[in-house]
Amino acid sequence: MTIKTFRLQVATTAGTDLINITPQVERAAASLGDGALLLFVAGSTAALTTIEYESGAVADLRAALERLAPRDMVYAHDRRWEDGNGYSHVRAALLGPSLTIPIQGGKLLLGTWQQIIVCDFDNRPRTREIIVQLLPA
Amino acid sequence: MTIKTFRLQVATTAGTDLINITPQVERAAASLGDGALLLFVAGSTAALTTIEYESGAVADLRAALERLAPRDMVYAHDRRWEDGNGYSHVRAALLGPSLTIPIQGGKLLLGTWQQIIVCDFDNRPRTREIIVQLLPA
Amino acid sequence: MTIKTFRLQVATTAGTDLINITPQVERAAASLGDGALLLFVAGSTAALTTIEYESGAVADLRAALERLAPRDMVYAHDRRWEDGNGYSHVRAALLGPSLTIPIQGGKLLLGTWQQIIVCDFDNRPRTREIIVQLLPA
Repeated sequence: MTIKTFRLQVATTAGTDLINITPQVERAAASLGDGALLLFVAGSTAALTTIEYESGAVADLRAALERLAPRDMVYAHDRRWEDGNGYSHVRAALLGPSLTIPIQGGKLLLGTWQQIIVCDFDNRPRTREIIVQLLPA
Repeated sequence: MTIKTFRLQVATTAGTDLINITPQVERAAASLGDGALLLFVAGSTAALTTIEYESGAVADLRAALERLAPRDMVYAHDRRWEDGNGYSHVRAALLGPSLTIPIQGGKLLLGTWQQIIVCDFDNRPRTREIIVQLLPA
Repeated sequence: MTIKTFRLQVATTAGTDLINITPQVERAAASLGDGALLLFVAGSTAALTTIEYESGAVADLRAALERLAPRDMVYAHDRRWEDGNGYSHVRAALLGPSLTIPIQGGKLLLGTWQQIIVCDFDNRPRTREIIVQLLPA
């Protein structure tokens, strides 16, 4: 039995970058059978969730995150390390790095208007690695 | 080997509806052995989490969600689509659609006061589908 | 085939206690092969997430949680049960009790600065049990 683990690379920009990775995940899932797809983003300034990926809802989520952990507050992390991404760490910890989605016949059982996004909260462009792994049911 | 995937249907009302689905999930789990139970809610205006399901804590969670993403704010989603559920999308993205719970001998390893809830944030009644899937350990 | 389920015990103090459990989880994982590691905290006043575990980011997350669900607000849970931990229930429900991390060759695929924390939000010292379970890929 081969291990069903893939890695997706996603290039991000500075600022809160919410990127729809559903097409890449669907391509990875198509060759798999039934089970659950674990998605995990390595790194402490990024997270994964789902949303209806249209510009309005995406802007609303950005605004909500800015209320929860404003970019321009004073952060203890920044005072210590001076890298200016204290807000990124807080946002990532609140949303979490893992997401698990059932698949059947290689098809993700998402809702019609439900897309998978990687949230890159860092204050500089990054190449994010998302690990995708099939867990057989 | 049969695929161990179930679908629960839950009827919800308008407003933030937090529904205890532990009894249904326990019934589905009872016929299963050891492993982890993946719960996933399809749709971009619902989420899953756990809470002590008593009226006080449930009201407190509702109030917290109203602080995080108030129903009556202006949302870009609503300006674009006029369906009035911008707050629902933000709340669902913050909480997330998946939850995984270990089971042993068909019994969920929850805490004594810990129940599973589906959070339906939409502004109209829905029939929610929760996918329940056994991942063998 | 033996079931790959471990239980970690973690002693916590009163207040919002954010504890790095990465070393214990790494030791548990080392004897396992490939797959995903499910972590689950039993109880309705605790949660799991990841963060860069340095004192600045940890203090920033504590401050953010205090903004989201302040300890000294009036909670319906407290009026009903008088145990004073209404804030704990809300925080735990917002963050969630489960986390899933891929492993390869017994090694967790975390980012370099990404540690696993248990968040104990209760207002008294507890012994927390974290269930760790290998889900083969």
